[in-house]
Amino acid sequence: MNRSDGRSTDMLRKVKVTRKFLKHAEGSCLIEVGETKVICSASVEETVPLFLKGKNEGWVTAEYGMLPRSCETRVNREKQRSGRTFEIQRLVGRSLRTAVAMRELGERTITLDCDVIQADGGTRTASITGSFIALVDCLDVMRKRKMIRRIPITDFVAATSVGIVDGATLLDLTYEEDSKAEVDMNVVMVSSGSFIEIQGTAERKPFSKEQMDVLLGLAQKGITRLIEMQKDLLKDVQ
Amino acid sequence: MNRSDGRSTDMLRKVKVTRKFLKHAEGSCLIEVGETKVICSASVEETVPLFLKGKNEGWVTAEYGMLPRSCETRVNREKQRSGRTFEIQRLVGRSLRTAVAMRELGERTITLDCDVIQADGGTRTASITGSFIALVDCLDVMRKRKMIRRIPITDFVAATSVGIVDGATLLDLTYEEDSKAEVDMNVVMVSSGSFIEIQGTAERKPFSKEQMDVLLGLAQKGITRLIEMQKDLLKDVQ
Amino acid sequence: MNRSDGRSTDMLRKVKVTRKFLKHAEGSCLIEVGETKVICSASVEETVPLFLKGKNEGWVTAEYGMLPRSCETRVNREKQRSGRTFEIQRLVGRSLRTAVAMRELGERTITLDCDVIQADGGTRTASITGSFIALVDCLDVMRKRKMIRRIPITDFVAATSVGIVDGATLLDLTYEEDSKAEVDMNVVMVSSGSFIEIQGTAERKPFSKEQMDVLLGLAQKGITRLIEMQKDLLKDVQ
Amino acid sequence: MNRSDGRSTDMLRKVKVTRKFLKHAEGSCLIEVGETKVICSASVEETVPLFLKGKNEGWVTAEYGMLPRSCETRVNREKQRSGRTFEIQRLVGRSLRTAVAMRELGERTITLDCDVIQADGGTRTASITGSFIALVDCLDVMRKRKMIRRIPITDFVAATSVGIVDGATLLDLTYEEDSKAEVDMNVVMVSSGSFIEIQGTAERKPFSKEQMDVLLGLAQKGITRLIEMQKDLLKDVQ
Amino acid sequence: MNRSDGRSTDMLRKVKVTRKFLKHAEGSCLIEVGETKVICSASVEETVPLFLKGKNEGWVTAEYGMLPRSCETRVNREKQRSGRTFEIQRLVGRSLRTAVAMRELGERTITLDCDVIQADGGTRTASITGSFIALVDCLDVMRKRKMIRRIPITDFVAATSVGIVDGATLLDLTYEEDSKAEVDMNVVMVSSGSFIEIQGTAERKPFSKEQMDVLLGLAQKGITRLIEMQKDLLKDVQ
Amino acid sequence: MNRSDGRSTDMLRKVKVTRKFLKHAEGSCLIEVGETKVICSASVEETVPLFLKGKNEGWVTAEYGMLPRSCETRVNREKQRSGRTFEIQRLVGRSLRTAVAMRELGERTITLDCDVIQADGGTRTASITGSFIALVDCLDVMRKRKMIRRIPITDFVAATSVGIVDGATLLDLTYEEDSKAEVDMNVVMVSSGSFIEIQGTAERKPFSKEQMDVLLGLAQKGITRLIEMQKDLLKDVQ
Repeated sequence: MNRSDGRSTDMLRKVKVTRKFLKHAEGSCLIEVGETKVICSASVEETVPLFLKGKNEGWVTAEYGMLPRSCETRVNREKQRSGRTFEIQRLVGRSLRTAVAMRELGERTITLDCDVIQADGGTRTASITGSFIALVDCLDVMRKRKMIRRIPITDFVAATSVGIVDGATLLDLTYEEDSKAEVDMNVVMVSSGSFIEIQGTAERKPFSKEQMDVLLGLAQKGITRLIEMQKDLLKDVQ
Repeated sequence: MNRSDGRSTDMLRKVKVTRKFLKHAEGSCLIEVGETKVICSASVEETVPLFLKGKNEGWVTAEYGMLPRSCETRVNREKQRSGRTFEIQRLVGRSLRTAVAMRELGERTITLDCDVIQADGGTRTASITGSFIALVDCLDVMRKRKMIRRIPITDFVAATSVGIVDGATLLDLTYEEDSKAEVDMNVVMVSSGSFIEIQGTAERKPFSKEQMDVLLGLAQKGITRLIEMQKDLLKDVQ
Repeated sequence: MNRSDGRSTDMLRKVKVTRKFLKHAEGSCLIEVGETKVICSASVEETVPLFLKGKNEGWVTAEYGMLPRSCETRVNREKQRSGRTFEIQRLVGRSLRTAVAMRELGERTITLDCDVIQADGGTRTASITGSFIALVDCLDVMRKRKMIRRIPITDFVAATSVGIVDGATLLDLTYEEDSKAEVDMNVVMVSSGSFIEIQGTAERKPFSKEQMDVLLGLAQKGITRLIEMQKDLLKDVQ
Repeated sequence: MNRSDGRSTDMLRKVKVTRKFLKHAEGSCLIEVGETKVICSASVEETVPLFLKGKNEGWVTAEYGMLPRSCETRVNREKQRSGRTFEIQRLVGRSLRTAVAMRELGERTITLDCDVIQADGGTRTASITGSFIALVDCLDVMRKRKMIRRIPITDFVAATSVGIVDGATLLDLTYEEDSKAEVDMNVVMVSSGSFIEIQGTAERKPFSKEQMDVLLGLAQKGITRLIEMQKDLLKDVQ
Repeated sequence: MNRSDGRSTDMLRKVKVTRKFLKHAEGSCLIEVGETKVICSASVEETVPLFLKGKNEGWVTAEYGMLPRSCETRVNREKQRSGRTFEIQRLVGRSLRTAVAMRELGERTITLDCDVIQADGGTRTASITGSFIALVDCLDVMRKRKMIRRIPITDFVAATSVGIVDGATLLDLTYEEDSKAEVDMNVVMVSSGSFIEIQGTAERKPFSKEQMDVLLGLAQKGITRLIEMQKDLLKDVQ
Repeated sequence: MNRSDGRSTDMLRKVKVTRKFLKHAEGSCLIEVGETKVICSASVEETVPLFLKGKNEGWVTAEYGMLPRSCETRVNREKQRSGRTFEIQRLVGRSLRTAVAMRELGERTITLDCDVIQADGGTRTASITGSFIALVDCLDVMRKRKMIRRIPITDFVAATSVGIVDGATLLDLTYEEDSKAEVDMNVVMVSSGSFIEIQGTAERKPFSKEQMDVLLGLAQKGITRLIEMQKDLLKDVQ
């Protein structure tokens, strides 16, 4: 299988992260995964959702948006808040919550805003990988402001997509690959190799356990590399 | 591990399906999985979404709702249309689309309405298992009305949940089990044992590939039994 | 006049009530009036609307919904919250409030949810008759939980429709009869024979005082029978 | 019973109608019933609702609104579109449709906008009485523009409220009277004395057939006078 | 240039103000500027927006609406809350806030509701001129109720429009003139001749500094006359 | 007056434009004016608004948004679509429409999306200056695709803000300066020095004609430089 950008089947696209991309946010970055570009920001607020009031715990949540012209076709601002959007922001929030010790946050909410500037497949997994970096930078600022004693992160979190396209198992699908995939899987993992989330979908025909095992192996390989990159980027944060 | 309803870890709850439950719908059933009760109906309309106009293909979509007092606490009608709702109805629609030969439907849409009357865990998987039955009955009516020549179903589709609770891997979680699960997985499968959708989520700590394999095995066992039940129920439809 | 279901003009359809239909609600029933089926539930919340705060009184309110495929034609979930819906839920709430001694409830709200599973005319009057039963069961539960001392019901409440179809005055109209009625009247009554609400509408031509008197007599006859049925059903509640 | 404005129990408030109140509308008036003031306008559009397309019939519909400060307390513009609003505009539309021969309108819709400038009880009945006048003036303009051959009105339509306050049966209630009424009834009538709509509501305790008969008699008396006034006002329209 | 209503280019339309037009509002008027008619009301509430809580200051805000048939073509109630509406109500609020000493109001909000009954150009400027009168009457009532010690108005505020139509600079444009204007300018001024707001828009081609100077001179002339009228009207308020 | 960034009173902030910033849009740029950063994109669609159908003309419109964390405080996505937003997008659309010969566009709409990535004052004027560049690049693409014969731009358009802060007249205000300004003015100009739009607002006290003249002179000086920059940037477009 020849990929249009010349990658081998088990190769990630080029990833570039610009930390502290926004002036006002406690944490932020621009993450570029090939042509996919997402601005991730982390904002702290001194409040928690109703169901946590008085429990002396924090909360981490996410919102996801796309610029109207991030895609091939312009999408109306009103139509942005669709089912797909809700699905993605729930996934991002859930994935990052698993890596935070909520008790140490105090009664505070950290909101991760993932805004897609340009889309070429994999926006939700780039959002997770980038949000983790914004989150750590935000927690670092909170520590410096004496809001917390230490950075309450229990593990690194990153994500990628894998899929079956024309019978070949591929790592990190572009939009073009994704749109003709038979199977599409998003995987969120921690540094130990354990999973936080697996969402596998047969787009055209059902997939077997064997196919799934190959896909998961490919995903683990990719995410391991993404986490190495995160560790390298964040090595100044102790 | 003792389950509060006395089941062994690999046992489904009692499933009861009342076919043709609604007078007006082309297909419908009431599916009861333990205390979880969902009305599934299938409605045909002579229209397709904009992106399919003129392509001579059909569409299958789903909507999901809960009666305000289907749960322990009353939930406002306005709050029903939340992110969770969108996530579920997208899952149900996607799962059933995989089993239908769209070209044979003509330019028609079948909408599967899944309305939860009473909730005790597993409402989304019961919705899938029940919707499949409503869908087949709807297609049968369409065939009798000469709208289609044959029932364009490529395979049986059913779903269940599995999870890890207090370290034990369990099949078909109740609400009580689900709310303390460490890992929660929804699996949609066809009769061949291949997967249509796998959604695994670490609620408290990441899960390993080994744990996942055990969970998938358990899910396959349960869904095989659900599909046998579907085959038995629908044996009058040729 | 021959009615399509063979009833005489002054005969109710068959009424069947399944009490305690829902597991979670404080009170609930499934009421079937011919082919019309409504799930009524009563939920208690420890709050009152703003205008009653601090007045040491309770409140009773109602919401009404229809399953998308309860009717001949599927109705979109978004279109459900129409003017007709608001009109009906205001009627149901008002009718039941008249029969409750609000001071005895304490600062609590009981919400009556009426969800139409299948519609064949008379859904609003079936909602009232069924809600009364759910309400009494809810109050009985509240008494057992020592929230109230006694059941603060001042009278029984039931409702039916009457109308003029092809010149004949009919009791308890089906959808088919209702859609060709010249006059359509919904009547809510208590056991003494007094009225809580009368809503008479000329659909095609104005009606005279004489016609109205005949219709009200017919309604009284029907409601008297419905209240007898309620008394019989609830005789275990002291 | 002494009424605060000195009226006897069977007396209407002073009614004043300013015809052709708005420059742009095909028909319009300002109706003042005591301190209650409503602007009614009738607008023609060359379209009908979907369910009437191609049936060669017209439609009459109504909308109702209140200026934010028409009442004692300011009501937010967003809160204006409540259940009460929907209930009233459905009543106004239904009442006037009964008096129009739809076939003669052609495929056109007449929208009656009733905007309450100042409220002191009886806004919905003033809206009906005033809308009838705006409707006739609108039809007269349509006839002059050769859109219709003759004015397709089958009868005069007017409305008032009656009620029981402190045991006394009163005609045409002010806001103060309405807010302490035990029974509140809105009646819409044609010139023959027949009814288009009767909506009687027990606000505090059920009412008997005898009480209802007295109330209806009072309403007939009042509406007869309102229709005389309409006839006098519209005598230039042939 | 001959204006269709015979005015010279530097002449205002006839202005008529009916003070205390509404019974319930603290201050109100009907302002008529030629065929443009706006009801302005001022309502006091014992609350301030969130950002002012605890600052011991008041707030003045405005809302703007149009009756559905105030214009040549009926405009749907739902479509009323458009961008244009928001733009206008922000302008009215800002203009009047400049003339009020907020500290003297206490923690109270005065809402100015401007409801256009009939539109013929200049509705936003008529809203400002009329709202000033309603505001002063409202403050006078507040002083009489001992809520404030003195009327905390720092200057008179009025507004008009000017524009270039067929090359001629005109004062106080009608709808017909406005719709063919090359330049359209709304000006808000105080009695000293200083400006509160200038909004000049080139509708067809850019305008020069010289043209602007002529337009502003014309506006000053008109507003000076409007403020004289306000002073005369309000001379009973000390 | 010492400005916090060391600029003299009549100096613009540093402006940087990255053309063709987005892959999918027909035209786009990232414009940075000091710390203010806005992504402007231009999208063509083969449709026009209803009021232009069949008139053989095009349309240019704008939408404006802010990333939730573009400001000091996070702003909810739902609260983004406020009155301020509508006011700004109407201003941007109007300003650019004046410079386009609509007849030459054919029945097409160009939508300018202005998304603020980071805000530090002057986001609306940066949106106008940047949108002009995106618009020209979009028209250039359209010409290359043979959709139009030539670039139908009649003049260059740019904008800046001016204001009075602590008595000093300043060009191109930062957020900090804007928030303490006594007068705030946004000016849109073409290369000839004529105006497209002037919006001057007294934030604390009214401003005189003399002050306005000084402000406009300052604005003209700044915009002249911005248009020189645009001309230089776009010199490859013939």
